[in-house]
Amino acid sequence: MKRVMLKVAYDGTNYCGWQVQPNGITVQQVLNECLTEFCGEPIHTIGASRTDAGVHARGNVAVFDTAMRMPGDKFSFALNTRLPGDIRIDGSREVPADFHPRFTDTVKTYEYRILNRQFPDPTRRIGSFFTYYSMDIERMQAALPYLIGEHDFRSFQASGDIDPARSTVRTVYSATIGREEDMITFRIQGNGFLYHMVRIIAGTLMEIGNARREPEDMGRIIEARDRSAAGDTAPACGLTLLEIRYPAWGF
Amino acid sequence: MKRVMLKVAYDGTNYCGWQVQPNGITVQQVLNECLTEFCGEPIHTIGASRTDAGVHARGNVAVFDTAMRMPGDKFSFALNTRLPGDIRIDGSREVPADFHPRFTDTVKTYEYRILNRQFPDPTRRIGSFFTYYSMDIERMQAALPYLIGEHDFRSFQASGDIDPARSTVRTVYSATIGREEDMITFRIQGNGFLYHMVRIIAGTLMEIGNARREPEDMGRIIEARDRSAAGDTAPACGLTLLEIRYPAWGF
Repeated sequence: MKRVMLKVAYDGTNYCGWQVQPNGITVQQVLNECLTEFCGEPIHTIGASRTDAGVHARGNVAVFDTAMRMPGDKFSFALNTRLPGDIRIDGSREVPADFHPRFTDTVKTYEYRILNRQFPDPTRRIGSFFTYYSMDIERMQAALPYLIGEHDFRSFQASGDIDPARSTVRTVYSATIGREEDMITFRIQGNGFLYHMVRIIAGTLMEIGNARREPEDMGRIIEARDRSAAGDTAPACGLTLLEIRYPAWGF
Repeated sequence: MKRVMLKVAYDGTNYCGWQVQPNGITVQQVLNECLTEFCGEPIHTIGASRTDAGVHARGNVAVFDTAMRMPGDKFSFALNTRLPGDIRIDGSREVPADFHPRFTDTVKTYEYRILNRQFPDPTRRIGSFFTYYSMDIERMQAALPYLIGEHDFRSFQASGDIDPARSTVRTVYSATIGREEDMITFRIQGNGFLYHMVRIIAGTLMEIGNARREPEDMGRIIEARDRSAAGDTAPACGLTLLEIRYPAWGF
């Protein structure tokens, strides 16, 4: 037996998120079925990030165990000829049998893109959220320093997911926002994110950019430790999980 | 009656091109049906560029005549609530009744995008062609000066579309190519393009980038006035019609 790690990219538009569930097709389900058929044995992948319905990924991570003797780096080529066009394996490798993609220190990077113009653009509707509200990038940038560092991000956790036993402290390593023509790109990197955290931060940043809140509000929202202090949850379609790294494992 | 001009954007993936045809759904057909229902009179649009199946647009142009008294600039808002998500009107205006989008001097801009990495990326598959062949941008750039100016571009015309009575002379105003991470973007602007011309140029540039041809071959290909001298036709999915301007009309 060996453990293989996959870097998984997908357009989440047509999936009910990552994790297998009874009421709709998920990325993990498609991947499990494809691997089970290819390996000739029942395969159950373990995903690093259970992305929501409609959320995209360029670098989600999944592992599985197989008796197949094919080298770990060849799985990406084999799977990509069998998967639908909206899921691709962007690399594979063998990893130690005790590597678990969730119970390990990580560096995760997410991107939220906002298409900010008068009308939507059909050629850029995957991986961006469209809004015609005016957005002042400098105001949004001024709110970012409050996010950096170790904080209790409880205000940015979806209220339906509160488990008092679980810590809501996370560390954000970097947060940037920039505009190229009509596309605004927000990137955030940290050691982990609470349920809906990136989308609630993105929604709050859009309210700051649209002058409905002040940049300094970001600090007050963190201090409040209260979901109702933050802005709306930005739609899933604009969010992409870019990368997950495991520094302690060297990948 | 008045003549209204639409700037039309679409993801061409699921359409049999622009022009109405008997064997499949086209962008023009969807637009005609939407306008006919909205205006309450039979509407037949005239398109500026009859893009091929799978080709995208951010700025194709269409005109139609209507008895409706709504101001020309309001049609974009009304149509965008009725069109499917892969077609959007990116602005509308009233134009003089004798304006014809094809029989008028134009400046057209096309973009061809090449996603150049080891594996495809599902989140960027609209509006780009994927290839894992190595591409040397400097070689491709060195081929561009041959294209600039007025030339007989017969070598870059699809061989199925040859009408000896029609001139194959066109003027290219500018041509640029650049790379940002794994995305190569080729832009070309001219007073018009022959059938498949941008895609054949893009296919030839890829052969130059991959060292299967020399940059200087571009000049020899133009001189040959022979389709077989040029490279393959690059796939439709990478091509986007960005913009059509009508300088004599001030728009």
